[in-house]
Amino acid sequence: MAKVAIMGYGTVGSGVYDIIKNNADRLSRNANGEEIELKHILDIRDFDDHPEKELFTKEFNDILNDGEVSVVAEVMGGLHPAYEFTKSLLEAGKSVVTSNKELVATYGTELLEIARGKNVNYLFEASVGGGIPIIRPMHQCLTANNILKIAGILNGTTNYILNQMIKNGKPFETALKDAQNKGFAERNPAADIEGHDACRKIAILASLASGKMVDYNDIDTEGITAVTLDDVKYADEMDAVVKLIGYAEFDKDGKVYSIVSPMVIKKDSPLSGVDGVMNAIMVTGDCVGDVMFYGAGAGKLPTASAVVADIVDAVKHSERSKKIFWEKPSENIMADRDSKKFSYFVRTTDSAENVQKIFGKCEFVDNIVDNESAFVTSPLTRSEAEEKLEKLSDVVTNIRVMA
Amino acid sequence: MAKVAIMGYGTVGSGVYDIIKNNADRLSRNANGEEIELKHILDIRDFDDHPEKELFTKEFNDILNDGEVSVVAEVMGGLHPAYEFTKSLLEAGKSVVTSNKELVATYGTELLEIARGKNVNYLFEASVGGGIPIIRPMHQCLTANNILKIAGILNGTTNYILNQMIKNGKPFETALKDAQNKGFAERNPAADIEGHDACRKIAILASLASGKMVDYNDIDTEGITAVTLDDVKYADEMDAVVKLIGYAEFDKDGKVYSIVSPMVIKKDSPLSGVDGVMNAIMVTGDCVGDVMFYGAGAGKLPTASAVVADIVDAVKHSERSKKIFWEKPSENIMADRDSKKFSYFVRTTDSAENVQKIFGKCEFVDNIVDNESAFVTSPLTRSEAEEKLEKLSDVVTNIRVMA
Repeated sequence: MAKVAIMGYGTVGSGVYDIIKNNADRLSRNANGEEIELKHILDIRDFDDHPEKELFTKEFNDILNDGEVSVVAEVMGGLHPAYEFTKSLLEAGKSVVTSNKELVATYGTELLEIARGKNVNYLFEASVGGGIPIIRPMHQCLTANNILKIAGILNGTTNYILNQMIKNGKPFETALKDAQNKGFAERNPAADIEGHDACRKIAILASLASGKMVDYNDIDTEGITAVTLDDVKYADEMDAVVKLIGYAEFDKDGKVYSIVSPMVIKKDSPLSGVDGVMNAIMVTGDCVGDVMFYGAGAGKLPTASAVVADIVDAVKHSERSKKIFWEKPSENIMADRDSKKFSYFVRTTDSAENVQKIFGKCEFVDNIVDNESAFVTSPLTRSEAEEKLEKLSDVVTNIRVMA
Repeated sequence: MAKVAIMGYGTVGSGVYDIIKNNADRLSRNANGEEIELKHILDIRDFDDHPEKELFTKEFNDILNDGEVSVVAEVMGGLHPAYEFTKSLLEAGKSVVTSNKELVATYGTELLEIARGKNVNYLFEASVGGGIPIIRPMHQCLTANNILKIAGILNGTTNYILNQMIKNGKPFETALKDAQNKGFAERNPAADIEGHDACRKIAILASLASGKMVDYNDIDTEGITAVTLDDVKYADEMDAVVKLIGYAEFDKDGKVYSIVSPMVIKKDSPLSGVDGVMNAIMVTGDCVGDVMFYGAGAGKLPTASAVVADIVDAVKHSERSKKIFWEKPSENIMADRDSKKFSYFVRTTDSAENVQKIFGKCEFVDNIVDNESAFVTSPLTRSEAEEKLEKLSDVVTNIRVMA
């Protein structure tokens, strides 16, 4: 009998509760026969009408000091007190599983180190891609590969907004409102549309792939607020779509190049067909080539199912650490911003003649908007691109094109 | 130090060798610090020019009787002697990992049972989807889900052929020759184009999902030999593509409905964009919804990388079984062929009037071929469909439409 606790009874937490209650038999079978019993639920709110109201507590210490509890699901979100709680639990020799990407991206290195030292587990499958299996497959199934590249649609809100622009011709502001009305976007949507959420997720994936902590503060991050309806129409003209991509490349020397950016993606890429609020992560390994993981990147039950899978795994591995971790690098591992080249899709009111004078060989795209030049540059470093873009009389759009 | 052996030095076997040799450090790190040393390679052929020719043996007993060898990769293919070898090794307390789908589909139940009894592992990640992580994610990451449905493009050869028909307008025979010339299809292509290969793979996935052995002999299997260029043109007209799908549905009462069949798939399904020799498996769980796993379904290094991941996993779990298994069902678990309904895409030279008389409400598709009626039926059981199709004066095409 493994006794577990949930911290945070919000959307994901109540989903975890539902799954544990409704699937006790199967979970026990999958946990090598160990029954999983829910013993505490921590939340500052009252749940007096809950059928198991006796499980609820407002006292973190009820969980921390309960020697029977071996696994705790931290699904409260935010950095504090989630960090302090998680740290205390791991130090007390309890495994913790989480959907909290902000916490994993910020304090993951330290928490993983503590878990390792205590021979318990800190698991975070739900922190990236919601219900999509990605952390464990990357760690276990692709273990024979050097990961060369990760490119992911990691944020469902922005993907929904872009999809509304692409499929239904809605301008950005209307698509955003629509997403808010449907509950896909927060009232304050900055974390999503500015790319911060995707940034934390690619930081986690890049840390896992490289074995060294990639600090999300070091990732150049650009959201989708500058993407217009005309941009997505041009992309369609190029048989492509615009998606917000969390991107990381891993060099042989251990350097990591990572950005979050809208990108023009050709329709022959499987990432181009990822619609609505769905997420997908393309991982390129030196042996396996491209593999892609697709599914619901958020939502109550999808995310909760990933949390519960981690609970089961933690119960199965109660006696030892799964060794999913990364370390703090002793020196800067971030590659120079100019170490990679991208082609750029550019729109300007400048003349085609000037464009060619400045950019040399480039591919013009048929005009959708009068009196402008639209074109794709040859591959350029970011500094080269900036330098050339500055020479244009104006720049309406500049979006990276995925290679 | 874990000592391992390879049985079969063909395409996959030599890939396994290359990966172990070139990635010793990382593999050891991922195997919790245990070094992995290759001690024997079994093959009936001579490899006198091989840089490590001393590893080769033609004697199976050299592996079986070597007490130091704890994990063996069976990548020889075929049923015999792979079955006898695997059985002997498991009974001797060695873990076996394999890419041999035929063996897993045929004798997997027995071999898994032996492995379980001996507290060792029989792992088969590479048997389905080549390098795509699918077995382990289904078993571990989706553990909180009841699997409702699996639909997969499981055979790269047929997907390549269909893709050539769809994208380049090549007739089936030309596309097949093309695949043979490129090495994507065997000289005798029956196992692929008749759907037998896909059938074994969906049998493995269905067994894993249901926990009970699904016998591939019980799966209605239809290949792609009857699919014509006109069919794929009609599909395009319907904003869809034709793909060979390995399909399984899981009922609450434990029954499994499974078929292998060409299907018309709308372009809004992520499966529709899976091109060339790539594979993809869509798994529907009751919590997570649809998740899809995409990647190279065959090839030397992709498949070998999955075999090596299993070797690492077997080394890490040397002291206990991972409990990935299914049992022989005590009664028939196959659902009646008429327990599920599909819409069918039908072409006939019969009149639209007759079609409507026989099929009632159905959706006509604009004609591409003169003097025929093309339409999509409402959902029908297989018997209902057959009964109605028989009433038509002739049937040019009848292909299931994926719901």
